Amino acid sequence: MSNLPDINQDFAAWYQEVVYKAELADHSPVRGCIVIRPYGTAIWEMIKARLDERIKATGHHNALFPLLIPQSFLTKEAEHVEGFSPELAVVTHAGGKELEEPLVVRPTSETMIHFMFAQWIRSWRDLPMKINQWANVMRWEMRTRPFLRTSEFYWQEGHTAHETQEEAEAEARMMLAEYVDLAENYLAIPVIPGVKSEQEKFPGADKTHTFEGLMPDGKALQMGTSHLISQNFAKAFDMHYQNREGGRSYPYLTSWGVTTRLVGALVMVHGDQKGLVLPPRIAPIQVVIIPIFKKGTENSLLLDAVHTLAASLRSLYRVEVDDRDYETPGAKFYAWELKGVPVRIEIGPRDLEKQSAVLVERLHGTKQVVPFENIKSALTIMLDALQQQLFIRAQEKQKTLWYHKTSLSEFSDRLKNQGGLYQVGWCRSKECEDSLKEFGAGIRCLLESRGASQCFKCGAASEGDILVAKAY
Amino acid sequence: MSNLPDINQDFAAWYQEVVYKAELADHSPVRGCIVIRPYGTAIWEMIKARLDERIKATGHHNALFPLLIPQSFLTKEAEHVEGFSPELAVVTHAGGKELEEPLVVRPTSETMIHFMFAQWIRSWRDLPMKINQWANVMRWEMRTRPFLRTSEFYWQEGHTAHETQEEAEAEARMMLAEYVDLAENYLAIPVIPGVKSEQEKFPGADKTHTFEGLMPDGKALQMGTSHLISQNFAKAFDMHYQNREGGRSYPYLTSWGVTTRLVGALVMVHGDQKGLVLPPRIAPIQVVIIPIFKKGTENSLLLDAVHTLAASLRSLYRVEVDDRDYETPGAKFYAWELKGVPVRIEIGPRDLEKQSAVLVERLHGTKQVVPFENIKSALTIMLDALQQQLFIRAQEKQKTLWYHKTSLSEFSDRLKNQGGLYQVGWCRSKECEDSLKEFGAGIRCLLESRGASQCFKCGAASEGDILVAKAY
Repeated sequence: MSNLPDINQDFAAWYQEVVYKAELADHSPVRGCIVIRPYGTAIWEMIKARLDERIKATGHHNALFPLLIPQSFLTKEAEHVEGFSPELAVVTHAGGKELEEPLVVRPTSETMIHFMFAQWIRSWRDLPMKINQWANVMRWEMRTRPFLRTSEFYWQEGHTAHETQEEAEAEARMMLAEYVDLAENYLAIPVIPGVKSEQEKFPGADKTHTFEGLMPDGKALQMGTSHLISQNFAKAFDMHYQNREGGRSYPYLTSWGVTTRLVGALVMVHGDQKGLVLPPRIAPIQVVIIPIFKKGTENSLLLDAVHTLAASLRSLYRVEVDDRDYETPGAKFYAWELKGVPVRIEIGPRDLEKQSAVLVERLHGTKQVVPFENIKSALTIMLDALQQQLFIRAQEKQKTLWYHKTSLSEFSDRLKNQGGLYQVGWCRSKECEDSLKEFGAGIRCLLESRGASQCFKCGAASEGDILVAKAY
Repeated sequence: MSNLPDINQDFAAWYQEVVYKAELADHSPVRGCIVIRPYGTAIWEMIKARLDERIKATGHHNALFPLLIPQSFLTKEAEHVEGFSPELAVVTHAGGKELEEPLVVRPTSETMIHFMFAQWIRSWRDLPMKINQWANVMRWEMRTRPFLRTSEFYWQEGHTAHETQEEAEAEARMMLAEYVDLAENYLAIPVIPGVKSEQEKFPGADKTHTFEGLMPDGKALQMGTSHLISQNFAKAFDMHYQNREGGRSYPYLTSWGVTTRLVGALVMVHGDQKGLVLPPRIAPIQVVIIPIFKKGTENSLLLDAVHTLAASLRSLYRVEVDDRDYETPGAKFYAWELKGVPVRIEIGPRDLEKQSAVLVERLHGTKQVVPFENIKSALTIMLDALQQQLFIRAQEKQKTLWYHKTSLSEFSDRLKNQGGLYQVGWCRSKECEDSLKEFGAGIRCLLESRGASQCFKCGAASEGDILVAKAY
């Protein structure tokens, strides 16, 4: 079948292998950094294009801020520097000289952007200010995994400033909703929105909204976050402005981001033993056409037909033709299955005579013989169905691994050994939260629901449900 | 008129001011780095979108390589390290520890990408390999100017590998032609393609193709380059592969790039005393609609009409409505002229009654009263004409500053004091080339033509025409 490690026996090994073999990424000579190869870059560009469109449609503007940040900027907000200090890469020399003040490679750009906001926001008329940046950032990681955790990664970081806390909170929630839409309707990944615990929130935030995915191995993946930033930032950068009454106010801030980690989520949630399975709406190649050459025959008619078909489909779909004459059809099928292309079209000399082709769907391997004139409509149906089925399949998987429990002792063994999502009550104490560490787990998020009456650990009154899981 | 410095008296001051006042960029707290503000970013995104489409259409694939490069990589090619060493920013500490080997922030990615090419290119079947990267790079500059020369800048860098030198040279020329098309047909900037002298070529290249623009102050601007890379690189990274005959070969390499400097070129070539003038094909906002409110009147009908018009135009043009009620029409005209928006549409209560609007073209300030139903076609004509006129205007300016001369003594005074382009012969000696330094000038490029018979300096036989100029 494939040379990939068994996906059920060793999911982690399967993941690494499929990332490299499908040519999404490669090892780089720099510790903790990967090369994102053309196929991985193409997936990221699809995600970017969709999200960038939505970021602009919701009134944000892209801008570009310096890569390097004066070290002193990070110390202006106490929690922020504590959170990021251990992970910084530091430029100490430049232009052949030692710098007077070291510069850090941005781990995130709050400090730089807030410094600029302080120059730009003079009056309430300048608000809201809604900026987004597509950028590379760096957090020096000890244990890395391609896409999921790397020292350098790509992301967008939105940064906004508002007159009222309500407006800022509405912004943070709106962008979370945009992320959920992207995840569910494009990546076909069901996600769970919620709020991070005090311990787990962004260093310097008042509140961190998150959306979590469940991976097939029972671990959760934090897929992105949207923060209501503490006013400490606005004050640390003296970001005051003249309010509507002529007085002096500080704006309320948000920041929100998703990263190339989303590519890793796509791989994990939909992949199978043959390799990737890409949701059609995000697949850089939706259809691959493979001519089945007959040995010792003139294949030019077949080649013409294949390229004519490809040209006619390109107004609707992203189509690739694999007409390499030195590979067998079997080797090609294998290669494109590994890359997760949603539909393969095979056309041999006999098909050409009958003016029909064989359409093969990637997930179930179902085959359909379709006359040339019906290929467009057959593809639309097949691709739409696959997009939906991938989401439903992931949703069902999530359901089977989502447990409602009362007390830790009931589920600690399963949590430790098999993972899964555990919806329980919590008293909001740090002690009870920390008790999860020995099982390699933690609180993924606080939910809006209040199903459980008591804390999973101490049994005191619960202040609302939470989700407990191990995580990437 | 405007508060900008006189464009004819002090072009350099005019440039800096217009960049900041039109909100293309802002100063940053990091020496030599700028913040590219939303309007500047939007122009860069327009340039990127057009070029990315062409890069893909000509068979290249985008990929993403690490920001940091092991210092030892740069020393693998002797000329390369000599060329870039003085400009490097160096990361010496990361994750709280001193690194065993320092990492440099990429000044360009040849070394990193060639290292990866060596892993990926195994057989002649892997060739050509055609990769492009959109990235930020860093060259620590002492004297900086926004967009034209900054320590960090944005660019695309194409890197390709081929079986034969002819094919590599054809690739380098093809991408140069794409750049020329972008410059002339989108940015409306006439450019001069040529080849760099031995002294001026890229550190590590066999040959550097360039395309040069002439700025209104008589200085040339190198707008981008396309290199045939020395085989030394392929050998330094042991990039060998199995050739068609089963033997061992090294590929021939190219690299090519254009940067955010193109935004600076747009500003300089087309701007006037009122500010920017953006060519319609690259302008992020092509049309701004300004309702002329009448004091003490209910303006809702006018507002409705303006937004209805905007909505109907958006399928064809990039349209903005400026309906701020706290600014006078005059202040708005001034602001949008400063930003170089090609056409302004004014609609007041009387226009509304007559179902017509006033269209004002940015370059000449010509006004045209147009009935609502004809606005689409009038805009198409106006925008097309402006795109052409900007190119022709720049071309005429270039002609008046392009001199054919025989000997340095004839033009050295003018060159030094007024700038300009001087087409002369050259013997190809370094001594004659260096004689231009005392006039603050140099050889911009070698041309294909052979008009002059003798060297501009020593009078020996010329080996082909060159262009001499001062440059940014």
